[in-house]
Amino acid sequence: MSGVDAVVYDAREVVVGPDEAESDGTREGSDGGSALDVRERAAVVVDDGRVVRVGDTDAVTREYPPENADRSIDAAGQAVVPGFVDPHTHAVFAGDRSDEFAAKLRGKPYQEILAEGGGILRTVRSTREASDETLLANLLGHLDAMLDHGSTTVEVKSGYGLDTDTELRLLDAVRRADERHPVDVVPTFMGAHAVPEGQDGDDYVDRVVEDQIPAVADQGVAEFCDVFCEEDVFSVEQSRRVLEAGRAAGMTPKVHAEEFTHLGGAGLAADVDAASADHLLHASAEDARALAESDVVPVLLPGTAFGLGADYADPQPFREAGAPVALATDFNPNCFSRSQGFTATLACVEMGMTPADALLGVTRNAALSLSRDDGSGTLREGAPGDLVVLDAPSHVHVPYRFDGSPVDTVLKDGVVVRD
Amino acid sequence: MSGVDAVVYDAREVVVGPDEAESDGTREGSDGGSALDVRERAAVVVDDGRVVRVGDTDAVTREYPPENADRSIDAAGQAVVPGFVDPHTHAVFAGDRSDEFAAKLRGKPYQEILAEGGGILRTVRSTREASDETLLANLLGHLDAMLDHGSTTVEVKSGYGLDTDTELRLLDAVRRADERHPVDVVPTFMGAHAVPEGQDGDDYVDRVVEDQIPAVADQGVAEFCDVFCEEDVFSVEQSRRVLEAGRAAGMTPKVHAEEFTHLGGAGLAADVDAASADHLLHASAEDARALAESDVVPVLLPGTAFGLGADYADPQPFREAGAPVALATDFNPNCFSRSQGFTATLACVEMGMTPADALLGVTRNAALSLSRDDGSGTLREGAPGDLVVLDAPSHVHVPYRFDGSPVDTVLKDGVVVRD
Repeated sequence: MSGVDAVVYDAREVVVGPDEAESDGTREGSDGGSALDVRERAAVVVDDGRVVRVGDTDAVTREYPPENADRSIDAAGQAVVPGFVDPHTHAVFAGDRSDEFAAKLRGKPYQEILAEGGGILRTVRSTREASDETLLANLLGHLDAMLDHGSTTVEVKSGYGLDTDTELRLLDAVRRADERHPVDVVPTFMGAHAVPEGQDGDDYVDRVVEDQIPAVADQGVAEFCDVFCEEDVFSVEQSRRVLEAGRAAGMTPKVHAEEFTHLGGAGLAADVDAASADHLLHASAEDARALAESDVVPVLLPGTAFGLGADYADPQPFREAGAPVALATDFNPNCFSRSQGFTATLACVEMGMTPADALLGVTRNAALSLSRDDGSGTLREGAPGDLVVLDAPSHVHVPYRFDGSPVDTVLKDGVVVRD
Repeated sequence: MSGVDAVVYDAREVVVGPDEAESDGTREGSDGGSALDVRERAAVVVDDGRVVRVGDTDAVTREYPPENADRSIDAAGQAVVPGFVDPHTHAVFAGDRSDEFAAKLRGKPYQEILAEGGGILRTVRSTREASDETLLANLLGHLDAMLDHGSTTVEVKSGYGLDTDTELRLLDAVRRADERHPVDVVPTFMGAHAVPEGQDGDDYVDRVVEDQIPAVADQGVAEFCDVFCEEDVFSVEQSRRVLEAGRAAGMTPKVHAEEFTHLGGAGLAADVDAASADHLLHASAEDARALAESDVVPVLLPGTAFGLGADYADPQPFREAGAPVALATDFNPNCFSRSQGFTATLACVEMGMTPADALLGVTRNAALSLSRDDGSGTLREGAPGDLVVLDAPSHVHVPYRFDGSPVDTVLKDGVVVRD
């Protein structure tokens, strides 16, 4: 038998993914959360970038002897989980806003920070001024940190340019980062992230729809189109215009919905068959059902609440509606976390999720929120060979450890990319 | 001029320590917290393990040319801070209690976990069963993680043995770890961590006082003696007996005080001139003043509150009393964090401390709580050459980043120990 790419063997446990019921739903565990398909003393085999076998170590290694593999990893005493997927980040920007963190701690209102030229529009200024090389170098540095924390697929939104030229430069940095970095980078166009200084909202939406979207589509550099649907930012109707124009140009909609107020972004997401609706602090149970019925994945972002000292979204209505709840870092200058392990910790400690649901939130459900239904975020046979060998005996250590993700070795497409 | 150990130059900022007023107190900053002595575009020189010079890069490098140093580090664009001191950990143990984390999330009361043989006494069983090699290997692994997060001095308590033989084995592991690991490990004897299963409290205190303390003192393996002064654990009188016996045997007292109830542990700490009183969630303003008057350093442990979903201690009364507030991870199976960067984040986000006070909490004030008043935890001339070159432009990034400490390079006694 010729050698396969990689054999990881003798793992104390391998988390394959959700334990699926026959109805194609996820079985409930004894703890009230989802049950996982966990194999003990197990092995995973990757070939041609895909998982070809997962099961009992003895049986698997008889068929695929580790010594014949290009790479073999003895994972005795360790847990193996799917590579983390981070489906919502704003990781391409320049400038430093740590001073605003200190000001917010002193109780300075965000509106006041904005009025003094701080906040998102400050990052827009720094980003416009930065060279292509700086933007790329910053992004690659953040991707390194994400990989260190076990993420193998990361969505990155543009949106700190707010003009055609800079938005294209940001998406070009994303494209170049994806080519150079082992992490799979998924590009989202988000020209409708904020209204630029001194512009009218409707006029700016014209620019997004008439100039930016055609230019982005022409270059084929974005898979998704996202919009910040929020009071005093983009209305539901403005958001709909952006998403429909994006859809017509080949980009799948995503929506920043119901973060600070209940405006109707979740309903819009369901209407336009978005891949995901994100934030959702003020979503209703009806919104949750509408999302579930339209296969829109709810993406919750506990790091944002942690950083702002704000309330957390409640995952329960989404679970009850049968939606797969995804989790993301929301990494941005206002929420400086690149660790999906820490996201999982917050989901458990602050949002009452079970460790199993938190793990699904940063793996399988996160992949679904990026429209990946090829087994991404699982270790089922046929799934991408993206996995993390934990420096820990069980997947529960992912949320249990507060000090970062317990990552030993990361494989991307069956190749060791962090050791 | 002969070469010095190390020259770190061109740092965007060097945080020397507190900005000290003439009265030997700490000056107040414009943000209501402590002011720091921060030098811009600065250099630090270490020789014979001590800081010999800190100041403007041009002036310092004229005197100490980097090319003549054993090691020179160009810190352009980066901040340099004192190595973190973690003054309260229970880092020497065996066994895994991550399953209890999951159970607590489901609302299972700690008393029930205890009744089923879980909790601290479960760690005692695993620890007693573990070999010396396992205990040492576990501790060294945790020290590696602490160093990765920028800690250069870490206090470690015994207390999962609860019998003379195992307590000595734990302190021996601490001694061996200190010899082998670049992190300075400060040993604390804590036989009075819990009452062992099936024993009477007074009888057990007899064992601590008559057997354990003499044996520990005989081997000279502990600098401090700590006790868990708490309702249903050790009373104030029992705690006093332990601490006075420890003091008589050469160990400086420390007290776990006022964590779950207001029992009088803080007053006891002041009475016996303890180095520190730790936890202090239920301490009164009067306690705060008593501690400050007796130079007992308050040590707050926000990670514990985070993990338990409990209330946080309020630093304000201690600040008002003029005490230097220290911060620690409290790393233990119930609080799995080895990052003083994350402690600083929690201190700011959850306890309202300023970034400057959080930084002092994990550096200078933490050193004071370990009775180090030789400049430890600062970069003043004469202080130990323990410093962290941050992968960040300012010290504010230590709390600002939620995903671990932004550590680039760590020097211990002027030698690079993490790169």
